[in-house]
Amino acid sequence: MTLGRLGNVGEEIPVIRHEGRVLDLRSLTADIDGAFLASDGIARARAAAAAGELAELAGAAEMRVGTPIARPGKVVCIGLNYHDHAEETGAAIPAEPVVFMKDASTVSGPFDDVLIPRKSVKTDWEVELGVVIGTEARYVDSPEAALAHVAGYVLSHDVSEREFQLEKSGQWDLGKSCETFNPLGPDLVPADMVEDPQNLGLRLWVNGQQHQNGNTSAQIFSIAYVIWYLSQYMVLRPGDVINTGTPAGVALGIEGQPYLRDGDVVELEIDGLGRSRQTMVQA
Amino acid sequence: MTLGRLGNVGEEIPVIRHEGRVLDLRSLTADIDGAFLASDGIARARAAAAAGELAELAGAAEMRVGTPIARPGKVVCIGLNYHDHAEETGAAIPAEPVVFMKDASTVSGPFDDVLIPRKSVKTDWEVELGVVIGTEARYVDSPEAALAHVAGYVLSHDVSEREFQLEKSGQWDLGKSCETFNPLGPDLVPADMVEDPQNLGLRLWVNGQQHQNGNTSAQIFSIAYVIWYLSQYMVLRPGDVINTGTPAGVALGIEGQPYLRDGDVVELEIDGLGRSRQTMVQA
Repeated sequence: MTLGRLGNVGEEIPVIRHEGRVLDLRSLTADIDGAFLASDGIARARAAAAAGELAELAGAAEMRVGTPIARPGKVVCIGLNYHDHAEETGAAIPAEPVVFMKDASTVSGPFDDVLIPRKSVKTDWEVELGVVIGTEARYVDSPEAALAHVAGYVLSHDVSEREFQLEKSGQWDLGKSCETFNPLGPDLVPADMVEDPQNLGLRLWVNGQQHQNGNTSAQIFSIAYVIWYLSQYMVLRPGDVINTGTPAGVALGIEGQPYLRDGDVVELEIDGLGRSRQTMVQA
Repeated sequence: MTLGRLGNVGEEIPVIRHEGRVLDLRSLTADIDGAFLASDGIARARAAAAAGELAELAGAAEMRVGTPIARPGKVVCIGLNYHDHAEETGAAIPAEPVVFMKDASTVSGPFDDVLIPRKSVKTDWEVELGVVIGTEARYVDSPEAALAHVAGYVLSHDVSEREFQLEKSGQWDLGKSCETFNPLGPDLVPADMVEDPQNLGLRLWVNGQQHQNGNTSAQIFSIAYVIWYLSQYMVLRPGDVINTGTPAGVALGIEGQPYLRDGDVVELEIDGLGRSRQTMVQA
């Protein structure tokens, strides 16, 4: 079973995909958000589906795929979290997680267009494993206790503008927070359905040419470590998203730096989390 | 007329203060949030008050003062935006605004305790003018057109942990996003009631000793410029908050660096925006 949201922007209907069918969750919840996740929503959805209490959603195949969760309270990102990506950007291997934020209103559907900002000449791609928090994480005792706070995992595209990120103040958020810069989805996959989140292949193509081909096993700081670490400094709340970093292969690190242009098509996938596809459009 | 929210955390009642009385806004709106501000809520509140349509809120004087707006979609901050503060921190005067973010869930009431993070030895204060966005600002044409997007102004305390901010990755968000690190309020003062937001005195005391005494006239980048600038990179949405920087006088810049300790009391005020007071408590 996976969770998702279908329909026009702002009118998405919460659903689950269960045994090949798309089931309407509205009898259980108005949305897939922090309150739903914190109240054992995934277990309740699973039970309702098993009991045959959820109706099939008519016309699901024709509907727009939205982000699989409502707008997060925050999107926290970990930078330079793969050895090969740190090397390609010329950065040192970090001694502690590099933490920055994206405007949470940048989340957009997995097949929606991504807007190239008007002043941009260096819009870049980054496939990432997104972690969705299910229960409040505040001063978690140890990394071993951290994964219990995860509701599930999601395919995330941490679109990045390198001039805005790196060539201005040195604070990265400006280059990470442009409109539509965080396609999420298609599905929220419950944590207990991901056998080993530390062994997932991540891949990304631009116009059919593969540029990224990594595995979460190569993360410098594990998902559990990152959640534990962040919880010592901030409170992670249900529905928050953590983008856990990207492997090598971004435009910044490629000879000639082939940044994204109007009309380019980016496709990305993570093992077990599905595939997304965005067309770049000049804002 | 000013706007506020009274009551326990999560149960705040929207009110206006009008001619010495506290009037209940619940007949007009469930909350003071982005949707309310974007739908001309302030003008509607003013009209309802003038028409005598709002009841007085009983027991208002005994109620906790909450943040004057619901949790923002984002809190964007401008760093080093006063000459004297940039100098005291040893930083160069920035050529463009320094932009970073605070976790928006850090907003807390103007008289609530502020928690000193468990690993903290360098928790610092920063009085700031907060700008609350009223209408979507996206690629605003010019700084001259920018102030039309402001709903109002608010006293903001951008609490900062200097070790987390400056001595780790170099990305500031970690030291800005700790629990309770953004006391806001007491009031949201409508933009048309602030004669000149670029001429407001800001003051801050710790245990009765004054440390900050600045004026928004000394900002490097004006409020209008900052809104215009940000809107070229991100979309500012109704209910978002911009913390526009702090003048000199923070602990980081004082001989002996007298960072905040358990039991310290911080008081701050901005001309026309009221006064707030927080007790520091070890988390």
